[in-house]
Amino acid sequence: MSNVKSALGKPLAGWRTQLYAIIFEADTRAGRRFDQALIAIILSSVTVVMLDSVRDINVRYHQGLILAEWLFTFLFTVEYLARLLCVRYPFRYAVSFYGVIDLLALLPTYLALLVPEVGVLIDVRILRLLRVFRVFKLTAYVSEYQALGLALRASVRKIMVLLAAVLMIVLVMGTLMYVVEGPENGFTSIPTAVYWAITTMTTVGFGDITAKTDLGRLIASVMMLLGWGTLAVPTGIVTAEMSYARHAPATTRTCQECLAEGHMPDAHFCRHCGACLPDYAHERPQV
Amino acid sequence: MSNVKSALGKPLAGWRTQLYAIIFEADTRAGRRFDQALIAIILSSVTVVMLDSVRDINVRYHQGLILAEWLFTFLFTVEYLARLLCVRYPFRYAVSFYGVIDLLALLPTYLALLVPEVGVLIDVRILRLLRVFRVFKLTAYVSEYQALGLALRASVRKIMVLLAAVLMIVLVMGTLMYVVEGPENGFTSIPTAVYWAITTMTTVGFGDITAKTDLGRLIASVMMLLGWGTLAVPTGIVTAEMSYARHAPATTRTCQECLAEGHMPDAHFCRHCGACLPDYAHERPQV
Amino acid sequence: MSNVKSALGKPLAGWRTQLYAIIFEADTRAGRRFDQALIAIILSSVTVVMLDSVRDINVRYHQGLILAEWLFTFLFTVEYLARLLCVRYPFRYAVSFYGVIDLLALLPTYLALLVPEVGVLIDVRILRLLRVFRVFKLTAYVSEYQALGLALRASVRKIMVLLAAVLMIVLVMGTLMYVVEGPENGFTSIPTAVYWAITTMTTVGFGDITAKTDLGRLIASVMMLLGWGTLAVPTGIVTAEMSYARHAPATTRTCQECLAEGHMPDAHFCRHCGACLPDYAHERPQV
Amino acid sequence: MSNVKSALGKPLAGWRTQLYAIIFEADTRAGRRFDQALIAIILSSVTVVMLDSVRDINVRYHQGLILAEWLFTFLFTVEYLARLLCVRYPFRYAVSFYGVIDLLALLPTYLALLVPEVGVLIDVRILRLLRVFRVFKLTAYVSEYQALGLALRASVRKIMVLLAAVLMIVLVMGTLMYVVEGPENGFTSIPTAVYWAITTMTTVGFGDITAKTDLGRLIASVMMLLGWGTLAVPTGIVTAEMSYARHAPATTRTCQECLAEGHMPDAHFCRHCGACLPDYAHERPQV
Repeated sequence: MSNVKSALGKPLAGWRTQLYAIIFEADTRAGRRFDQALIAIILSSVTVVMLDSVRDINVRYHQGLILAEWLFTFLFTVEYLARLLCVRYPFRYAVSFYGVIDLLALLPTYLALLVPEVGVLIDVRILRLLRVFRVFKLTAYVSEYQALGLALRASVRKIMVLLAAVLMIVLVMGTLMYVVEGPENGFTSIPTAVYWAITTMTTVGFGDITAKTDLGRLIASVMMLLGWGTLAVPTGIVTAEMSYARHAPATTRTCQECLAEGHMPDAHFCRHCGACLPDYAHERPQV
Repeated sequence: MSNVKSALGKPLAGWRTQLYAIIFEADTRAGRRFDQALIAIILSSVTVVMLDSVRDINVRYHQGLILAEWLFTFLFTVEYLARLLCVRYPFRYAVSFYGVIDLLALLPTYLALLVPEVGVLIDVRILRLLRVFRVFKLTAYVSEYQALGLALRASVRKIMVLLAAVLMIVLVMGTLMYVVEGPENGFTSIPTAVYWAITTMTTVGFGDITAKTDLGRLIASVMMLLGWGTLAVPTGIVTAEMSYARHAPATTRTCQECLAEGHMPDAHFCRHCGACLPDYAHERPQV
Repeated sequence: MSNVKSALGKPLAGWRTQLYAIIFEADTRAGRRFDQALIAIILSSVTVVMLDSVRDINVRYHQGLILAEWLFTFLFTVEYLARLLCVRYPFRYAVSFYGVIDLLALLPTYLALLVPEVGVLIDVRILRLLRVFRVFKLTAYVSEYQALGLALRASVRKIMVLLAAVLMIVLVMGTLMYVVEGPENGFTSIPTAVYWAITTMTTVGFGDITAKTDLGRLIASVMMLLGWGTLAVPTGIVTAEMSYARHAPATTRTCQECLAEGHMPDAHFCRHCGACLPDYAHERPQV
Repeated sequence: MSNVKSALGKPLAGWRTQLYAIIFEADTRAGRRFDQALIAIILSSVTVVMLDSVRDINVRYHQGLILAEWLFTFLFTVEYLARLLCVRYPFRYAVSFYGVIDLLALLPTYLALLVPEVGVLIDVRILRLLRVFRVFKLTAYVSEYQALGLALRASVRKIMVLLAAVLMIVLVMGTLMYVVEGPENGFTSIPTAVYWAITTMTTVGFGDITAKTDLGRLIASVMMLLGWGTLAVPTGIVTAEMSYARHAPATTRTCQECLAEGHMPDAHFCRHCGACLPDYAHERPQV
């Protein structure tokens, strides 16, 4: 939310400022209520799309669902126009990440009107499903995603290296299994065999394709134990980062007298020289 | 146990106090024996319900199982009445969490008597199965649940954020697979496709619904590797919390001036009042 | 090995001492060779039992396998008698853990002679399979098991609590699924439903029993996400213990001047007061 | 790359030195571009082999794929000859790890020419698949593999011990299941039963072989919970190592007297020579 705001410069004066505060800000009471209502509507909209795909429900309540669909589309349209209206640079919003997603949530329903042929309707429904992406707007409201993302970003490079290693193993092992088991045992092609190898290494194990020969089962056994050990590595990487971050909050304060670091968040005095620490309590209300 | 007690105020004098000590307290020898017997009876009761559902056993030993069922119900009824009798405020116990569960463990068997029609019996058995919840009473006796729960509570908020992220991914991926694979490959509706996506992301992989097309298998492969990486995150969160808690016992030092606890092992001065801390080395013999 | 030795007091003089040194000790060259040969024979013996169960191999090489079987049994018998001969208190060895396993590895083959009726042979083979347990003797030779076991023992109690919680969830969820799905969808009894629930919670997901109804799939989805989160807890417990143990070796040295602790293993001087630390280098050769 | 270089001594002067710099070095711009092109060609080559195994694509584009196959083989041959030409000791390169892999990537296609009988072609394709191993050359370009490998090597011994324990459990449990379930429920031999046991313990759970009897399901349930707990151990080991390594960067301080590194953040004196350490606080701005 704040990055959208910063990208648009200072908001305008008058009623547009008030509207801006309600729609884009989450700090005021009205803003918080708007966000909550929006999330509820998004979830309802997703639910309607999901229910519409269930055959029994589709047959019985098709009219109602289409009505709800149009209601949600109307609400999203009004919200989209309001957003465009209250920001200083509407175009910047329109091409921003959330602006594009907001638009994508509206388009499919309208496109189905412009191209009314029955046969195309099914394809249009595919586009309509993109509204599900609207849920991603939720992320903007939860500040915790950033903390989590930060911890993950630190280990992204290591995990990419691991992923490359896994892809190599999976490629070699899949090829090996294709040769050993062959098309008659379900390993119809190397891509299929690699799909099986990924299934095995990640311990998912669907079981639609399985080793039938003794040699194939031996290789599969090795792969399973391999995947089991490998599973520990990304976990280890992420945990090490999080464990480090968990300990970190205690180590950012510095004593102004002896410059000792690593004081706990609730410390008032330096544990090395006993000097009074810069008061933490001023930054947050006392409990 | 203790929270039930505190909710009821001081126990009454005389034989009710003694009964209270046996039933609600776990510190005395009688109280401990009562608890052990109760757990044994609960486990036996659950076993009887389980065995009764197995067809071969049901056909042969139905009479005996019904008898055992009534015996356990009688014992639970006596225990329930005794609990009501010995507490100062019976109503408070009756509406407390464990009071309601205690009652739910009795009701189904009696309700089967009041509504004796044969056809309803099966539905009543459903209610009877609620007795299984009685097992949750076990939790009250194990203090370790609290330590574990505390470590988990610290990371609940982070895990909720992760769960929301997973639900979004699962929703989008399920929708995508519904479009790609379609009803003819088992993805009969979006909810079904989401069920498959959860199956895949959590590495359960039942295999009752699986991708058949090449594109579907590619998406499934990405999802499996994604789920594999994501699996590391909650593990990392919980581990970081537990690792932090595990290191905490090293900070049991107490300031003699302000009685603040939790100083770091190498601290020389209290971080709360700045007083000199008792020398750490004096507390343990030299090696 | 050492606990067996200590249980038997001082070994006898003469050739029995020499034999004892070879069979029970692993420090001398002869002893190490004996252990290596024994492990090789045990592994070969297990392989023969395994191959004998494969039908194609059984039909073709049955005579050879039986011969090998008898050869291994003869070697194990000689070894067992030698062990009895060279220890001071043969009976103590015979009733010790490894003594019983050594005997159990011999008995099945001989018992098949005493009870030669063809129909019983299959049952006897079951006993013969106990020889696989002989492999457990391997544990005695690997000191690392103890370090691993120690780290696990520290968290056994916490894991037991978790296991109890998991069993409760699995019991309740299994019962719920039995009611929701019913015998017509494969949930033929509560034990079967609990088996499915364990399959789901542990992310194994065989897929022989799966939810068919929408409600059942919803419950299954919740269980999978639940199991996913729960998976993090034992990992977190064990990791926290191991991480603690991994850091511990650095914190056992104490400065004799300022009594500061937690010096790194290769430190020569106290990091607090600069005094010379008790020399670590004397305990191990310089590199 | 560097180890290949060091194994070959100083490169020759003139154009061979330039060629060497391009092919073997990754520091210059030309060298980096060569490496990137090589990786792209390797990936394309692997893709062609994979696509050729898909039946639909094979039927339609067989000619094109064979052409691409020969093009890649030609490029790899030129590269191989260039490598032989520009190193001081060509034979040393030829017998080095990457030299052998480079050769193995070429041979299959040429061998298919020498042995042109149709029936043998399929076997030759098996050799051709070895080109996939060429991808392993990628590892040489990613320095991060070494850091990851180092962390893993530290825990390799512990994981080997765990693996041995798992193999024992799997052997015993597989044998037990073979006896309990028997060939009529899919456990046709002990190796098959062990394969199932590995499937179960690693939580892969293909579901092609599953327990049918009640006793078998009970054993399977215990195994799943066992595997679940065991899964935590390698994760714990690796995480503890990585967590330890992650904390290490905090000890990058260097003593100005003896140049010893790795002092703890709160150290005042060098733990090697006892000299006063440069004050930590001076190195970073106050907050």
